[in-house]
Amino acid sequence: MLFEKYQSIIENADRACHLRGFYSQYPDHPKAYGEEALVNGEKHFKNMLNHPFDTLLQDGADEWQGEEVSPYTGKKSGITYPVFPVETLIHRAKQSVKAWIKTPVKERAAVLVNSLENIKDRFFEIAYATMHTTGQSFIMSFQASGPHAADRALEAIAMGYHELTRFPDEVLWEKPIGKQSVILQKTFRPVPKGIGVVIGCSTFPVWNSVPGIYADLMTGNPAIVKPHPGAVLPIAIVIEEIQKTLEANGLDPHLCQLAADTGDHPIAKELCGHPAVKLIDYTGSTAFGNYIESLKNKTVFTEKAGVNSVILDSVQHIEKVAANLAFSACLYSGQMCTAPQNFFIPASGVDTPQGKLSYKEATEKIKDAIDQLVNDPKAGAGTLGAVQNDKTIQRAQSVVNDKKGAVILQGTAIQNPEFEHARTLSPAIIETDAAGVDIYQQEFFGPVVVIIKTKDTEESLRLAKQMAAMQGAITCAAYTTNDQMMKRIADEMNEVFTPVTFNLTGFIWVNQHAAFSDFHVTGGNPAGNAGFTDPLFVDRRFVWVGNRIMK
Amino acid sequence: MLFEKYQSIIENADRACHLRGFYSQYPDHPKAYGEEALVNGEKHFKNMLNHPFDTLLQDGADEWQGEEVSPYTGKKSGITYPVFPVETLIHRAKQSVKAWIKTPVKERAAVLVNSLENIKDRFFEIAYATMHTTGQSFIMSFQASGPHAADRALEAIAMGYHELTRFPDEVLWEKPIGKQSVILQKTFRPVPKGIGVVIGCSTFPVWNSVPGIYADLMTGNPAIVKPHPGAVLPIAIVIEEIQKTLEANGLDPHLCQLAADTGDHPIAKELCGHPAVKLIDYTGSTAFGNYIESLKNKTVFTEKAGVNSVILDSVQHIEKVAANLAFSACLYSGQMCTAPQNFFIPASGVDTPQGKLSYKEATEKIKDAIDQLVNDPKAGAGTLGAVQNDKTIQRAQSVVNDKKGAVILQGTAIQNPEFEHARTLSPAIIETDAAGVDIYQQEFFGPVVVIIKTKDTEESLRLAKQMAAMQGAITCAAYTTNDQMMKRIADEMNEVFTPVTFNLTGFIWVNQHAAFSDFHVTGGNPAGNAGFTDPLFVDRRFVWVGNRIMK
Repeated sequence: MLFEKYQSIIENADRACHLRGFYSQYPDHPKAYGEEALVNGEKHFKNMLNHPFDTLLQDGADEWQGEEVSPYTGKKSGITYPVFPVETLIHRAKQSVKAWIKTPVKERAAVLVNSLENIKDRFFEIAYATMHTTGQSFIMSFQASGPHAADRALEAIAMGYHELTRFPDEVLWEKPIGKQSVILQKTFRPVPKGIGVVIGCSTFPVWNSVPGIYADLMTGNPAIVKPHPGAVLPIAIVIEEIQKTLEANGLDPHLCQLAADTGDHPIAKELCGHPAVKLIDYTGSTAFGNYIESLKNKTVFTEKAGVNSVILDSVQHIEKVAANLAFSACLYSGQMCTAPQNFFIPASGVDTPQGKLSYKEATEKIKDAIDQLVNDPKAGAGTLGAVQNDKTIQRAQSVVNDKKGAVILQGTAIQNPEFEHARTLSPAIIETDAAGVDIYQQEFFGPVVVIIKTKDTEESLRLAKQMAAMQGAITCAAYTTNDQMMKRIADEMNEVFTPVTFNLTGFIWVNQHAAFSDFHVTGGNPAGNAGFTDPLFVDRRFVWVGNRIMK
Repeated sequence: MLFEKYQSIIENADRACHLRGFYSQYPDHPKAYGEEALVNGEKHFKNMLNHPFDTLLQDGADEWQGEEVSPYTGKKSGITYPVFPVETLIHRAKQSVKAWIKTPVKERAAVLVNSLENIKDRFFEIAYATMHTTGQSFIMSFQASGPHAADRALEAIAMGYHELTRFPDEVLWEKPIGKQSVILQKTFRPVPKGIGVVIGCSTFPVWNSVPGIYADLMTGNPAIVKPHPGAVLPIAIVIEEIQKTLEANGLDPHLCQLAADTGDHPIAKELCGHPAVKLIDYTGSTAFGNYIESLKNKTVFTEKAGVNSVILDSVQHIEKVAANLAFSACLYSGQMCTAPQNFFIPASGVDTPQGKLSYKEATEKIKDAIDQLVNDPKAGAGTLGAVQNDKTIQRAQSVVNDKKGAVILQGTAIQNPEFEHARTLSPAIIETDAAGVDIYQQEFFGPVVVIIKTKDTEESLRLAKQMAAMQGAITCAAYTTNDQMMKRIADEMNEVFTPVTFNLTGFIWVNQHAAFSDFHVTGGNPAGNAGFTDPLFVDRRFVWVGNRIMK
C-alpha cells in the first residue's frame, strides 16, 4: 500500500505540529542532494534545449509552440510545447477524474506525495529551467522551484488530507422516540467541485502554481495548468512527473494537464470562462485577477499586486537593519510579491541606543547599503539575478524618468560575471513625502524603492495601513525597539489583514515565507483573496454532502 | 471562570464526535422543561402583546413600529419594536466590538453558551411567539425555535471554537543556518472581517438566523439582525437574552442588535450595502439572495429557493411510504425549505415485494395518505399549522387555477379546532409528465405537491438532478429497494451537491436535519452558497494573519 509508505509524511505534515519548530520535508541546500545531482541536472537541462518537450503523457497536439527566452543569455530556449484546443483539455480532464473521485483520500494523498518524491529527483533540472526563464539566481531557482515549492505542495496535500477526513465517512445515528428508536446510516462525502484551472506567472512558475495544483488534485478535481508563455519549462517538468506518477499508479495522467499557449494566442480567458471550469487559481496582474474574480459560478483563488511597506521607527543597529533591508530590496531585483517597496521614515529621524539618527542619515544608510550590495563583486549579481522581461526594466526606468519624486539612487545595469548578456537592473531609490501618494500608491513590480518622509511613525503607520487597505499588501517589515509601538503597528496592519515582521537582521528576510509556518497572502486585502495554505484554500474546492439511509 | 463552567459543553459539542450517536444539548420535548414552563411561557407571551418590546438594551429609538399578525387568530400582536437609523446601528456595532475582539476565544465561547442557557429559560415564550408569527404548530414552534435552534447555535460556537484555536497563538520557530540559527517568534491571529448583518425570514425566524448570529459573534464580529417584519418577536427575545448576557459579562450589548424595519420602509438594502458591513447571512427569496450574492467586497452566506424531489423507484410497504411522504408534504403546510415538492413516479409503476404497483395506484396511495392526514381530526390541523401569509395561499391557489397540470387533489381550508380564524390550506396535488417542466421547475413555497409521471426511474433521476442543478435543491427523498439504484441515485444527486435520504418511514421525515449530524444546505447548488455548519461557515468570517518578531 502506497499510503503506508508515505503515512508518516502525510500525517506529520500538519501545520499545528510543524509550527512548533522549523520544518522542511525537502532540504533546501543543493549539497544535501549529492555531488552528481548538480552536474546531471545541468546536463539534462541542456539536453532539453532546442527540442520539443515531448515527455508529457498528453498525445495528439495540434501544434508545438514555445517562446521562452533566457534573461541571462538573451537566447531562446528553442523548446516547444504541445498546444491543445481548450475543448480537448476539458474533455480529457472530465474523463480523467472519474476514477480519481473514487480513489480513497488516503490513496490520493499517497500518490501525490509519491509524485513529489519523483519531482525531487528533478530539482536541479527544474532549477536551471527556472533560472533561464525567470531570471532568478541559481540558488533561488533551486530553493523556490524545488524544495520550497515541494513543501508548499505537501502543505496543500496535508491540509486537504486533514479536511477531507475530518468527518466520519459513515455513522449509525440513533434517535430515541419513546421506547423505540429511529436508526439512520449517515454517510458524508466531500464532493469535488469540478475542473480546476491554474494560471501561472513568469517569475515564480512552480512555487506559485503547485499549491493550487495539489489542492485541486487532493480534493478530487482535475487540474489544467496554464503557465505564463515565458516560463513553461519549470512547471512542465513538474507536470510530467505528476503524469508519470499517476500513470504508474494506474490513474489517468490527464488529471494534470499542461495547457501551453503563446503571447499571440492566449487561452486563459477561454479556459476560465468554460462552464465546466469551476475552480481557478491565479497569480498575476491585478487587472486580470479582478476579471477572474468577477466570473460567475467559479471558485477563485487569486494573488494580485500589492504594495509592501517598511516602517522604520527605532532600531538597535542601523547598519544591520540597512543591510537586511538592502538585501530584501535587491533580492531577485524586487521581482517578488513579498519584496518591500515603500520605506516610511519619520522626518524627525529614527531612535537608536546612541540617540536619534536623522532622517537624512537613515536614508543614506539604506542607500549606501543597497549601493554597496549591488556593487559587491561577490554578492551583487547573484543577489539581483536577472530581470524577467523588458517591461519590468521599462517600468522601473519610467518611475525614475517621470521625475515625480527625487531620484536619490539611479538603477544601473550590473555586470554579471557569468552571463555577459544578462538583463540586469539594480534598484532605484525615489524619495518623496506623504503628499506623493500618486507615486507610492502603485506597485512597481521590479527594482524600485520609494522612501517616504513622514511626519512621524504615526503617519508612517497610517499611510502603510491605507496602502494595504486600498492597494493590497502581502507583507510589512517594521523596525521598532518600543514594545508599545510594536503592538500598535501589529494591531493596525493586522486590521487590514497584513502580516508584520519585526526587526529582522542577519540571514533572514521579510521576503521569505516558509511552508507550514507562514500563511502566504492573507486573502483579506486587495493583494489576493486566498492564502497558502489555510483551511479555506482546500475547503472551498469541495462540498460536503450527507446521505441518509433508514435502517 | 465562565469557560470552565461550560468547557465540557463547548469541547464536546463537536461534529465528528456527535455524529457517532444522536446528540442534543437541549432536549426537544417540552415535558423535559417541567410542568410550569408551559404555563409561564404562555403567560409571559400574552403579557408582551399590545406593548412596546422595551426590554432590549438598545436605547434612544427614533420610533416604534410593529406589524405582526397571527396566522392563527388574524389579529395584530400590537407589539412595537424600536427602529434605528442604519448609521446608528453601524456606529454602535463598531464601538461594541472593540473589547470583544480582545476577548479570548475561550471566554467568547463561554459567554455565548451562557446566552444559550439563558435563552433556554425562554423557550416557551419563544415558542408562542414563533407560533403566532410563522403559523407553525406549537410543538414545531417549540422545537424549531427552541432546542433545535439552540443546538444549531451551539454547533456554530463549537465549530468556531475549533477553528479559532486550530493553530498555536504563538510559537518559537528556529531555522538552522550553518552552526547558528535564526529564531523568530511567530504569532497567529484570526482577525474578524467586520460587521455582520443577518437577514431573517418569516417562517423560521430563529432557526435560520441563530447560526449566522452565533458564527459572527464567535469569530469576533458584531451582528446586526434584521428580521422579517412579520416575524420579529421570536428573534427579539433571543437578542434580548444575548444582550443581557453580554452586559452581565461586562461586554457591550450592542454586539448583537435588533434592526427592526417595516414592509413600507425596508432597510435590508441600505444595511447590506453599507461599506462597514462585511458579512451577510441571508434566508429568503432567490431574487433578493442573488442581489446579496452580487454585492462587491462582502462575504455572504445565503439560503434561497430550491426544488426538492422525491424519487419513487421501489418500496417495501407502499402504505408506510405514502404516510411518511404525506406527513412531509403536509408538515407546516409545505412552508419548509426542506419540504418535498416534486414527486417523480415511473409510468411503469413502482416495484414492491408483492409485485408492480401501477403508476396510478402509487399516485392514489399518496393522494389518499395526504387526504387522510389533513382530514384526521386529531392530527390534521396540528400537522398543517397555519399559512404565514396571504401570498403563500395565493401562490398555491394560482398553481391550481392555472390548469397547467391536472389537479388530482384540491387544497382546502382545514378547520383548526383551537383557532377558528386560522389561515389554513391543505396541499393540492398537480399531476403532469416530464414535458411539464414549466410547472415543476419552480418552487411553490407552500402546500403544493407536483406528481410527475416519468418513463422510468432513469428519467426521474435525470429530471431531479437537472432541477437541483438549475433551480437548486436542499434535499431529496428517494425510495428504492435496489442497492445498485440506491448507489446510482446517491452518486447522481450528490454530483449536483444534493443530499439524498433513502427509504424513510415512521417517525422521521426528510424535512428534518439535526444539528451536529446533518449539514443543512450544501452550498453547492443554487439553493444557497453556505451550509449549517461546515468549516467554511465559520472560516469565511475571519482571516488568519501571522506576525513575526526576531528573537
